[in-house]
Formats: sequence, C-alpha cells, structure tokens
Amino acid sequence: LGSIIGEKIKVLSYGESHGVGVGVVIDGFPSGFEVDMDYIRGFLDRRRPGSSEWVSARKESDEVEVLSGVFRGVTTGAPIHFSIKNKDARSDDYDHLETVYRPSHADFTYEQKYGLRDHRGGGRSSARITAGWVAAGALLHAYVSTHGMEIRSFVKQIYSHQISQLPTMEELRNMTDPICCPDPSISWAIQAEIKKARDDKDSLGGVVSTLATGIPVGLGEPVFGKLNARLASAVMSLNAVKGIQFGGGFDMVQHKGSEVNDAWSLQQGKPVTTSNFSGGIQGGISNGMPLYFETAFKPTATIGKEQNTLNTLGQQVVLEAHGRHDPCVVPRAVVIVESLTAIVLADLYLLNLTSNIRRMTL
Amino acid sequence: LGSIIGEKIKVLSYGESHGVGVGVVIDGFPSGFEVDMDYIRGFLDRRRPGSSEWVSARKESDEVEVLSGVFRGVTTGAPIHFSIKNKDARSDDYDHLETVYRPSHADFTYEQKYGLRDHRGGGRSSARITAGWVAAGALLHAYVSTHGMEIRSFVKQIYSHQISQLPTMEELRNMTDPICCPDPSISWAIQAEIKKARDDKDSLGGVVSTLATGIPVGLGEPVFGKLNARLASAVMSLNAVKGIQFGGGFDMVQHKGSEVNDAWSLQQGKPVTTSNFSGGIQGGISNGMPLYFETAFKPTATIGKEQNTLNTLGQQVVLEAHGRHDPCVVPRAVVIVESLTAIVLADLYLLNLTSNIRRMTL
Amino acid sequence: LGSIIGEKIKVLSYGESHGVGVGVVIDGFPSGFEVDMDYIRGFLDRRRPGSSEWVSARKESDEVEVLSGVFRGVTTGAPIHFSIKNKDARSDDYDHLETVYRPSHADFTYEQKYGLRDHRGGGRSSARITAGWVAAGALLHAYVSTHGMEIRSFVKQIYSHQISQLPTMEELRNMTDPICCPDPSISWAIQAEIKKARDDKDSLGGVVSTLATGIPVGLGEPVFGKLNARLASAVMSLNAVKGIQFGGGFDMVQHKGSEVNDAWSLQQGKPVTTSNFSGGIQGGISNGMPLYFETAFKPTATIGKEQNTLNTLGQQVVLEAHGRHDPCVVPRAVVIVESLTAIVLADLYLLNLTSNIRRMTL
Amino acid sequence: LGSIIGEKIKVLSYGESHGVGVGVVIDGFPSGFEVDMDYIRGFLDRRRPGSSEWVSARKESDEVEVLSGVFRGVTTGAPIHFSIKNKDARSDDYDHLETVYRPSHADFTYEQKYGLRDHRGGGRSSARITAGWVAAGALLHAYVSTHGMEIRSFVKQIYSHQISQLPTMEELRNMTDPICCPDPSISWAIQAEIKKARDDKDSLGGVVSTLATGIPVGLGEPVFGKLNARLASAVMSLNAVKGIQFGGGFDMVQHKGSEVNDAWSLQQGKPVTTSNFSGGIQGGISNGMPLYFETAFKPTATIGKEQNTLNTLGQQVVLEAHGRHDPCVVPRAVVIVESLTAIVLADLYLLNLTSNIRRMTL
Repeated sequence: LGSIIGEKIKVLSYGESHGVGVGVVIDGFPSGFEVDMDYIRGFLDRRRPGSSEWVSARKESDEVEVLSGVFRGVTTGAPIHFSIKNKDARSDDYDHLETVYRPSHADFTYEQKYGLRDHRGGGRSSARITAGWVAAGALLHAYVSTHGMEIRSFVKQIYSHQISQLPTMEELRNMTDPICCPDPSISWAIQAEIKKARDDKDSLGGVVSTLATGIPVGLGEPVFGKLNARLASAVMSLNAVKGIQFGGGFDMVQHKGSEVNDAWSLQQGKPVTTSNFSGGIQGGISNGMPLYFETAFKPTATIGKEQNTLNTLGQQVVLEAHGRHDPCVVPRAVVIVESLTAIVLADLYLLNLTSNIRRMTL
Repeated sequence: LGSIIGEKIKVLSYGESHGVGVGVVIDGFPSGFEVDMDYIRGFLDRRRPGSSEWVSARKESDEVEVLSGVFRGVTTGAPIHFSIKNKDARSDDYDHLETVYRPSHADFTYEQKYGLRDHRGGGRSSARITAGWVAAGALLHAYVSTHGMEIRSFVKQIYSHQISQLPTMEELRNMTDPICCPDPSISWAIQAEIKKARDDKDSLGGVVSTLATGIPVGLGEPVFGKLNARLASAVMSLNAVKGIQFGGGFDMVQHKGSEVNDAWSLQQGKPVTTSNFSGGIQGGISNGMPLYFETAFKPTATIGKEQNTLNTLGQQVVLEAHGRHDPCVVPRAVVIVESLTAIVLADLYLLNLTSNIRRMTL
Repeated sequence: LGSIIGEKIKVLSYGESHGVGVGVVIDGFPSGFEVDMDYIRGFLDRRRPGSSEWVSARKESDEVEVLSGVFRGVTTGAPIHFSIKNKDARSDDYDHLETVYRPSHADFTYEQKYGLRDHRGGGRSSARITAGWVAAGALLHAYVSTHGMEIRSFVKQIYSHQISQLPTMEELRNMTDPICCPDPSISWAIQAEIKKARDDKDSLGGVVSTLATGIPVGLGEPVFGKLNARLASAVMSLNAVKGIQFGGGFDMVQHKGSEVNDAWSLQQGKPVTTSNFSGGIQGGISNGMPLYFETAFKPTATIGKEQNTLNTLGQQVVLEAHGRHDPCVVPRAVVIVESLTAIVLADLYLLNLTSNIRRMTL
Repeated sequence: LGSIIGEKIKVLSYGESHGVGVGVVIDGFPSGFEVDMDYIRGFLDRRRPGSSEWVSARKESDEVEVLSGVFRGVTTGAPIHFSIKNKDARSDDYDHLETVYRPSHADFTYEQKYGLRDHRGGGRSSARITAGWVAAGALLHAYVSTHGMEIRSFVKQIYSHQISQLPTMEELRNMTDPICCPDPSISWAIQAEIKKARDDKDSLGGVVSTLATGIPVGLGEPVFGKLNARLASAVMSLNAVKGIQFGGGFDMVQHKGSEVNDAWSLQQGKPVTTSNFSGGIQGGISNGMPLYFETAFKPTATIGKEQNTLNTLGQQVVLEAHGRHDPCVVPRAVVIVESLTAIVLADLYLLNLTSNIRRMTL
C-alpha cells in the first residue's frame, strides 16, 4: 500500500537505492501499443546521474529491460515490467550513516515506522527509485502523445534566479538547455550558482513548471479524483517537493474574483477562456486550455557541510556527508515531474473514456 | 470512481446542491467508538451558510441523520451513513444558468465530460456537498483526538491582509474569532474587506493554514501514499483550492540546504527537530513534530458583477449572478480543511498500525 | 472495506435489518442513461418478503427513493443513491436473541470480530440488505441489456427435487412460475415440500442456476479479475451460498479431457464451441457462448425447531426461534443472484472497453 | 487491472510462459519478518514441473531471486519482489499454435479481448505464472503460521478415484505421498490412472481439498469481502478450476436445516460447534473452527489426441498437441491452492487487526 499509483493504469514501484535494482510493473495498460524503447531510454538519460559536472558522480547506465507484457514490440494487455539494475552502488560509502539520523531525511521516520531501515544510499526513500517511475512515465508520455497531448516541464527558478516570462510550448519544444531552463541568461546564472553551492558543500532548491497542451476536455473524476488532486498527489511523491500550485496559484489570493475569473469566448469556433488563471482545470476537470502548474523543491537535504544531529542511540553527533550527491536535483527532477504528469493524464484519459453513455456507444 | 476517499477508511460522498440531499457513507471504520452527535453538529455549524451577514443567505439547518452503522450510540463496524437533507434549495434561482457557462466554474467541464449537467446550484460541483465531508471529518476528528491528535485550521490571510506571526496550538484552542483568524486586528480588517467585496459584487480568496500536533511518528505510506500527497489530494478536492505548501513551502526555494535542514536533537529525552521547515513530514512520513501546511483559495468564482461569457449555443452573453453566494468562502472553508485533514490522518493511522511486525505482536 | 463491490462501477451497500433502512450508492456509472424506476421496482418486488404464503410474514413495501445522481430521469455521472426505508421492523421480536449465538448464524462471528453486534433481525448480516443490492442490480441489468446481454436465474433444485433438463433462454423469458422453477411439476413438488418444512419448523436449501446470453467476447480481467472469480466472489456474498460451479463444474472431474473439451467451429460464420462445458468462460474471459453457473444454498439457518446452543455467557441454552422467517429463501434468492450477476457483468463490460488500443480508437 | 490480488497486502503477478520470466511484487507486507528462503524454495519445488514421470517434461529449476524489500534477511516494509527466470522455454514447440484456437484454452478469448496474443506456451494464460503466486504464497504461509494458522491442501479425488474419509491435520502433516493424496491405496490407483491417461494422450481432472486450522475468529470483511468470497475469487484464478464449495457444500442442498445447522457448545471452556457444515465460516467470517473447502479442477485442456477446432482464419483444422504437458495438473495444483489460501488469510488477518477499537488500543 503506497507503492501503487493510478486507478485504471496501476503503476507499481519497487526497489532500493543499493539493492539489486529498481523497477515498475504497469497493470491495466491497453494492448496493441508499440513500445518505443528509444523514447524510454531518452527519458531515462534525462534523469540519469553522472552526466555532467554539477550532478552526482554515481555512474549508472540505467539500462532498462522489459521483463513482461510486450510481445514482438507491442503491448499485450498483460503487466509491463521495466527493470533497471543498480550497477554503481557503493554501499560502503554509507556505512557511517547506519546509526545516524540525517537532518531532513527519511532516516528517522522509516526507522520508527518500520523498526528497521535499509540505510544504504537512502534505501527505499532514495530518488534512485524514480528511474522506474521515469520508465513508466516515458511509456505513458508516448501513449498520451498519440492522443494529441504534449507535456513539457522546465526549470522556472533555482535559488533566487527565476525566469521573467513563461515560455510557449513552441519554445519548450526547441529548448536545448542543459538544465532545462528556457532563458539562457538565467540558465547561465543558475549553473554558476550550482557550482558555487557545490564548492560551499551546500545545496539549492527551485521551482519546476509544467505546461501541457492538447489535453482533451473532461479529464478528472469528481469529487476526490480531480485532475489537480491526482497531479498534486503524484508530484508530492517526490521527497523534495514541498508545494504545488495550479494556474495563478497562491498569487490569486491577492486578487479579486473579477480580476482572475476566466471568461469563456469563442476562438475559431472553439470555446476558450480569455485568461487561464485556472491552469486548464475547472471543477477538477480539464477544460481544454493549457494545463499549467508549478512545483516547489526544497534544497537537497544532503549537504557536505557539518551538521549537528542525533545518532540512533540518541547521542548528539556531528555529521559530514560523504557519498555522491547533487548540490541541486532540480534539473534532473524536470523529467520526473513530466513523467508523473504523463502517468496521471494517461490514467484519467482511460477513465474518462467510459464516463458518458453517448460517447461510449458512438 | 472519484467519489471515494481513503484506503483503510473509505468515505463515499454523494449528493447535489439542489437534489434531495447530500451525505457520506464511511466504510472500514472500527467498531466500538462512541459517536458524539454534538461534536458532529458543532462541526456542521461551523460550515453552515446563513449564520452571519457576510455569508450566503441560503438557510440550511444541516440536520444530520445517522442511517446506519451505529447501534446504541456506538459504531458497529458496518458502514456509517450520515445523511443531510437539502431544505432551502431554490432551484428557480438557477434557471437562467442552465444554458450559460459561468466563468471559472465547472459548468463547461461537467457538460463536456458527462453530456449533461445538473445546473441547479452547481449540482454535484457545489460546495454544498462538503456538508457530508464535514460530518465524516467530525467523526474522524473525534477519533484521532482519542489518539492524542489535535487538528486546527485557521485563516492566515484573506486578500492582502495576513497575520504576521503563526499562532500556537494553545492560542488556536482558545480562539473565538468569527472568521477563524487568530489576530483580532487582522480579523477586523478582513471582515471590513469582505463587506466591501460584497457591496462591490466582487469576491475574495485567501490562505487557510492547518496546524496539527500529537501526530504519532510513522503516518504516511511510501512512496505514493505519502502523508503530504494524501493531504494535498484531499484538500485539492475543494474546488477553490489552487495551491498547497508544507512547512517552509515555496519560500524554501530561496534558501540553501544549510539554512532549512531540520537537525535532530533531544528535548526531554525525546527526539525533536530544532526547526520545522519540513512541516512535520520527512520522506512522506510524520516525524512527530507539528504538522503544518497552507492552502491557497482563489477568490470565489461566483460574483455579482457583470461578466462576459458563452452560453451553451456558443453565443457571447453577459452574465449577472443572482442566487445566494458568499463574497468570500474562506472562513467557512476552515472547518472543511480541518475535516479533510482528519479523514486523511485517521486513514493513515489505521494503515500504520499494521506496518511493523513487532508493533503488531506487542 | 468489504461493503464495496466492483472496480469501474463501485457499489457500496449500507444498512441493517432493523435500522433506519438499507441502500446502495453506485459510483462510476456512466452519465446519460435513462433510469427506468418500474424496472427497478419490478426487481425489488421479486425479492420482497410477504408476497406469498411460504415466505416470511414481514411486510416491506420496499419503496426505493433516488437520493442523488439522477437529473430529469437520466444519470449524471455522479453517485446514484437508492434508499429503501425499513418499515415493518419489529425489533422486539429479537430481544431474546441479544444474548444467544444462533447455530449457523453470524451472531458469534460478528460479536467476536467487532466486540458488539446489532442483534435486531441479524443487523448487518441480514438478507434484508440485499434489497439494496437488487436495486443496484436492476439498474445494471437494464444497462447491460441495452448492450444485448440477457441474464436469467432460476431454481434448478430445492431439497431433493430437481429439474431434469436445463431450460432455454426462450423458456426462461416466458416463465411465470411463482418460485422461478422452469418445470411446473417440479415446482409443484417443491412448493409442497416448502410448506411441509414450514409446518415442521424446518428449512430447505437448493440450487439456483444462472444463464446469460449475448455476453460480448472479452469480459474478465486476467489473472485475478477473471469473470468466474468475480461472479464467485459476488455470489458468495450471500450468506447461505456454500458453493458455486461453472459450466460442467464438479461433474467434469469424472470425465477425461477429450470428453469435456469445447471444440471451436463456425456457425453461420461466427466462431462457436460445439459443447459448452466451459460455461461461456475460457481463461477467465467470456468467449461469447452462454454463461452458465450454479449456486448452492444451504438450508436457511433460522428454524423454528428447538436447538441447543450457547448464550453470550457461555451457557448451554435451548433456542426456539420466533421472529418471521422463510422456510426456504431460494426462490427469493433468484433475483438476488441475477442482480449480482448484472453488477459483475456491467463492471467488467466497462473495464473491457479500454483493454485494446485499436478498439478504443475506433 | 486484474493482475493484483489482496487489499492490505497487494500481490501483483507478472510474466509469461515463454518470456523472460515470471514473478510477483508484494506491497503492504509488514516490516520485521525474517524471510526463510528454504521455505519458499520448498513450496516452489512442490509446484515444479519435471520432477516425476507423470508431469510435464519441461525442466525449470525455478530459482527465485529477491530483487527488493528484504534487507539482511528481514522484510523492510518496502515492496518484496520475487523473480523467477524462464530457462527451459522452447517457444518453437508452439509455432504451430500461433494460428490455432485450441479447444477449452484461452487462445480465442485473449486474441479477441486484446487483438493479439503471446501464443508461446499460453503466454500470460499459462500456469507457468503460478510459480510467482507460490513464491508469494510461501512467504505468507510462513507469516500466518507464526500466528498459529496451519494450511494444508491435498488431493481428494482424481477422475473416479476418491478418498473415503477426510484426513486429520495430523495425518496431513505427516503425509509424504508423491501426489499429495492422503490415502495410499487411492494414491496408487490415481497414479496408475494418470499414466494411462498419458499413454492415451488424454487428461484428467480432480478435486483438491483444503483444511486450515488455528484460524483466529474474525477473518473476513462483511459484506463483499467475506472469507469465502475472497477464497473463491482467489482459487478461481486458476484456469482449470470450475467449482468451489465450503463445508458441506452442494451436498447440503439435500438436507434440512435441522440436519446441517452447526450448534454451539463449550469444549474445554472454548466455544466450538458440534458439527462443521459451515466449513469454519459463518456470515463470511471465520468462526474458529477448521476452515474446509473443496475445489474442482476440470481435466487439463491440453491433450495429445487429435481434436477439431478453428484456426485464426476461421478454417476448420485438426489439432494435435506437441509441446510438453501434464496429463493431470491436480497434484501440482495442491501447493498453488495452499498458496492462494495463505495469501487470502494473511490479507484478511491484517485487515482484521483494525476492526475493533478495543482490540486496537490494547
């Protein structure tokens, strides 16, 4: 309970940072879909550590193996299993952490909840397990794109550096920025800031934005399965995420209804709203306008600086992290948010197909 | 699908604004719990419209009837049914809305998704249905309080008026403010602002904060059933909510890891964190520190001002709301957020009881 | 947990025999379906006690009220609530049972599981609650019939009297037998036997058969959501059911594979099997042939004869049932089995619509 | 949907007969349980083909690998993954079946439902996937045995040969029969019959009985999660199972209530029933008496004899099976039924722990 996400498509995540590997099993995905392994590998490459100077030095090739559910390159309707082995797990690096509760980590809570914990590299609470989520997300991203949906996440802000204007989908599609920031000058400033944080043995957080277009009207199940509720729940599954806001978000608090209501009008014969403070969702259901939301990542909890904390005997100790860590995980998190968004949209898309007698019988 | 929340305790919501009534059925609640109807009525009274000058004039006594699951005042383990009849539904007030898509409402999305909609008072998308949620929430609030948990929500901000300091649980417990704002001078300013908005036929949004103490360590199911993910999902079920943040939230983006990490130390022999930027949750699991999160409500979509929008024929029309509406729902939403929090905590509390072999066999 | 059946259509049952009433809430049913209340009342009439001399004397009109989910006679996609009040509950008749564990009843198990029980008329374990199931079943029976499915249950055997030949769907359609037995001479013998059992203060069991035609190929979800698994689970929800068999059932044990394999052949260009020992299900999925299964009902546990048993103090007592009971519930159970079958088929029908990419995109 | 069984413990099955392998992932199992790999291997050995002269010649060592959820030999609360590779898959043997619908197999139904199928060795519909179920079942069998539950299945009947008296748990515990039949003379007759069937290129079915003792009172969730409903649903997941009956089963139809009611009495101060026609279940809840049920297996559908059937072009063809098949799967099915029973009991055991406030707070 807790390792499964989705209702019509159930994605089960398993694995630990330094165990045999991580993976996902996807139950309920339709048969007859061609699986593009290059597409999936492309997603995994975007998440992979070790690919540049400012991210963790752990080298994982993240080769994904399909263990079930695909026959001759096509899904069969049976559970699809993506397995990714751990190859560069250096558990010895974590020996000194077995008896320490790191600040703002899951060490204390896992140990209290379960009575024991796999301390090696964070075990089950490690971001390593998101490799599996990204493999599943890539498949579902490909799937929803065949139904016209385009989903792109990007870095809106890291530390104090934020872009001044939201990019268009066109601009995102053509973006080649190494840290997924659509404004080159901001990207440059962020990269410098991340290097500085690394040198300072400190860490940084940021805001990842997600824009999705081509969303059919009707996705989201009232009243507890709303599109925004499902997205919030999915994205909160990432440990570092501490906030999410849709459309105008927290800023709308400072405005009046007359300023932020989204009026309907016709554009080329199609109903659109003249503004999009709703972020593409009304009453928990997609309204056909671009989906937009922002996710706040706190600074990575693992830092090299000395910190005071407790050990498992209740003694005050000074912790200095070794291991291999990212001073800022936000750039790597972009593809994870994109993947989780795809998982939610695919699930709600299939659910929505049976909402309406008339649509079903057509 | 979509009308059920919870995993061990499943709460099913039914009903419409202007139908026969609204209610909830609660499946999976343990037997042997004494149901305090006054406690439940107290919660419903806090949500009820018609109780002061700045809220909707709809008069609903919200009498709750227990239709099943309780025998001689005690729960039996069978589904508990709370039914609340609609009494002051004036559906005629809504006749003119049958063919209009109101801005930032669920009219268009429901009609597209389902091919038809109950337009009377918003139908299923009305906040009227939260009366049922509050009845369920009150029961579960009483339940978790027997396990030492105290949950209190309050108004942190409405429009530009926000409190400058977070209240303690002690202060919240003694608060008697009519709009649930812990700072009397801010409350006064807010009340004036709401009256002004009402006179202007406009509306206001705000921020509701929730503080909960006495939370046992261990609530939350990794990795997709995290405490924060469940709370986010629950609170997003309220139509006007457009954002949620936990602990330090979005503000942490502007700080470094060394500034916002929560270090462990001992206080009277008990492990505590010296700060609480995590909001009481680490790795998705409660860590024993106070739970804290904030919820952003956009201004109420229903306003009296004239607005341009489309009718169901695709024609541009001018809409002027009649009906009975709140210029600001935030004060009434406080008890709803508190109720949803109780639903999530009770559910995860029961789930957690079976997480650990050693705890189970004690 | 336990009061909800179904996956795409979730049916929640609530209520007790002598509480305020019983009912169901149906979540996930598509919008746009016209609800025929006469059809539903017709189903409830078939289940209703008090309608003939050999059934319980409890008089319940079983008036069903629609509390939500239907607008202008059509489903809206919101939860549909059917409520049935208890009117002729004479709880005093059961006072003497509060401290007794009746043989082969749920008294002991409920009290041990929950620590208390609503002893009035069996409380939650009473067959009274199936009135709600039948209301839901009637709606879904109507629904699947619009997709060409016809479901009919009948009495195959009561005590030692059993029909010698299975009826055709045509014969079942035209059957007017008061106890739903397709062979008039057997029906006559059964009716005499039931009256004798009533006079003897004893009770009888029997076998209910179910035949369903027009089932589309493809219903059933491998591997744990098989059509037969779902039907078995649903029908076992009836307290008196102690066995179920599909197609050739237990008898096939005595045959060889070459005798009971169902070979495929063409009939008017359509693939059919030349025999139907599989009962219309292969690999857990409907194969387009008639669905056929049989359900064994033990004799009603409530009898008027004196019986030795224990009271709640652990003392040996002699029990003589008062109250109002059926000497044989099997004839009334026919419509309940039919209803549960409809619930399962409707659910799997909707699930199957999204099994196959190619079918979905047509 | 369909590949997951269980509510508090969710067991996800994946894999195909001739794919990379098969396996299970178990979510929701408590932490702190020592995993006895020998116990699991012992279960797998009992299911394994190739271990005697009358079963399939396919040689699979069924080595189980633990990919996650276990740390230093103890469960961590994270998903537990048992993976079993396919080693002796000779897919070429099945080439001729790609275009044929075998009688009483899942070929036609899978192809119609999904639009394609993995024909190699039955693909997803193969009994090969039960290797994963048995691995999961072994773990949960070990778990429930630590709570005093003992579960043993055995061969009651194959073809016309059936034992005349039910064995005691003591006798089952000491049984060493190669085909799991407690009566040696019947076992001998059955073995001869199976060899004859093999020589005749035919197949046999049978009845597997399950006896479980030490079941705590209270397992089973009314009204749709009854112990018998869950067991029936689980056991029906085996393709060849066509019937199930509890306690007195179908035979009770021929008796009167006064003959088969189970009266309560005291035995050494403990409430017991003087007979057990209920099979240990009353009102869907375990009553502390031995659990007993019987499962009917039809003869294996795969036979060597020539059979008429259709190919995928709709042409009549004559099929002669090659491949490697069991003339009778019933002996190998014993451990699978035992495993499925353990899965259901473990799940309901954990669910029951939170049924009752008073028990919880002790």
